[in-house]
Amino acid sequence: MSHGKQFTLYTHNNGPNGWKVAIVLEELGLTYEPIYLDFQKGEQKAPEHTKYNPNGRIPTLIDHKNDDFVLWESDAILTYLVDKYDPEHKISAATEGDRFHQLQWLFFQSSGQGPYFGQAAWFTFFHSEKIPSAIERYRNEILRVLGVLNGVLDKQEWLVGGKPTIADISFVPWNQFALNILSSQIEGFSFQKEFPAVSAWHAKLEARASVKKIAEDKAAVKKH
Amino acid sequence: MSHGKQFTLYTHNNGPNGWKVAIVLEELGLTYEPIYLDFQKGEQKAPEHTKYNPNGRIPTLIDHKNDDFVLWESDAILTYLVDKYDPEHKISAATEGDRFHQLQWLFFQSSGQGPYFGQAAWFTFFHSEKIPSAIERYRNEILRVLGVLNGVLDKQEWLVGGKPTIADISFVPWNQFALNILSSQIEGFSFQKEFPAVSAWHAKLEARASVKKIAEDKAAVKKH
Repeated sequence: MSHGKQFTLYTHNNGPNGWKVAIVLEELGLTYEPIYLDFQKGEQKAPEHTKYNPNGRIPTLIDHKNDDFVLWESDAILTYLVDKYDPEHKISAATEGDRFHQLQWLFFQSSGQGPYFGQAAWFTFFHSEKIPSAIERYRNEILRVLGVLNGVLDKQEWLVGGKPTIADISFVPWNQFALNILSSQIEGFSFQKEFPAVSAWHAKLEARASVKKIAEDKAAVKKH
Repeated sequence: MSHGKQFTLYTHNNGPNGWKVAIVLEELGLTYEPIYLDFQKGEQKAPEHTKYNPNGRIPTLIDHKNDDFVLWESDAILTYLVDKYDPEHKISAATEGDRFHQLQWLFFQSSGQGPYFGQAAWFTFFHSEKIPSAIERYRNEILRVLGVLNGVLDKQEWLVGGKPTIADISFVPWNQFALNILSSQIEGFSFQKEFPAVSAWHAKLEARASVKKIAEDKAAVKKH
């Protein structure tokens, strides 16, 4: 821990799940040293990283102020960060019931949003052949997930406890990605018109100082 | 709550995530009334269910002894059940560090195992056309996830805290499914030979009274 910061974050310059953790570290004013792994070189699967994270994916967090405690899976990391370092519940649920609902939304983000939006990216940009029925399947899943969120956010401003929490924040990076996909694939797509409640919620989240700061960091890292 | 049991569980006769919750309820000796939704009739997306779970998927749990508290997302439910009803840590992590590692593995199960194994099922059995490159993609992801688990379980008997917990149990239903897929798609596939540590771990989990009981329940429900 020669860098003197509280955390080391193994991450990637373009991975939504790593930026998600960065936003929450920023929200809580915690210091961290990001290590951007080069996926082209397979650094995420190299022993220097898999000794911490056997899954060989990002993000991986090391907390140097907690005996070098190591944790991976982005939404487990968000939960850890608020449990340990958000005692005033600035961005986390305060009651027992809200805490479990916060966890419920994190699981929906990690199992329902992330993987399906990721498959949309895969079949759109990386798969060995163009398969319209697969691209359509995952575009429809993006629309389904946004529809679920819209139904909920139409009746309440935030997902849990009447205030922004990590449950809301966790959706930001993949929703930013989804907007790019939908705009490029559906002619005349209007986020505001199709999903007005999600659009308003997402705009409020994007206006947060933490999300703006991380967008700047991301732009700076991508330039290199 | 005319059925007199502690919980109502909205589930499905063939959904791995619902059976996962049933196993943990069984482990903890908690009583529940299962309601098997008919997906052919779209009951999971009908208002009687979505008023509890806006995602329109299973499982959904209602705890009648906690003011009818409603929770969905299977791994959020497992965490709730042990936090509330496993004070002796019979099947859950006891220390703070283990608790976060338990959560980490639950997120790996929900985001890394479930969705990808589910896509393997989709492209093998349900997709509108046969797409060998998509079937291969998800079969390879099953093999990758089993490889990650094997690397870990080669060095330790259980995922967290030196004893079986919900982290281990959460993998059982989708691994049972994976074995069927791999056996049918790869000639001469041997679980024991390819993934010896996972195979031994899975066998120990399948030998648990709870897992056996739920296998019987599942067989009985499928007959109807």
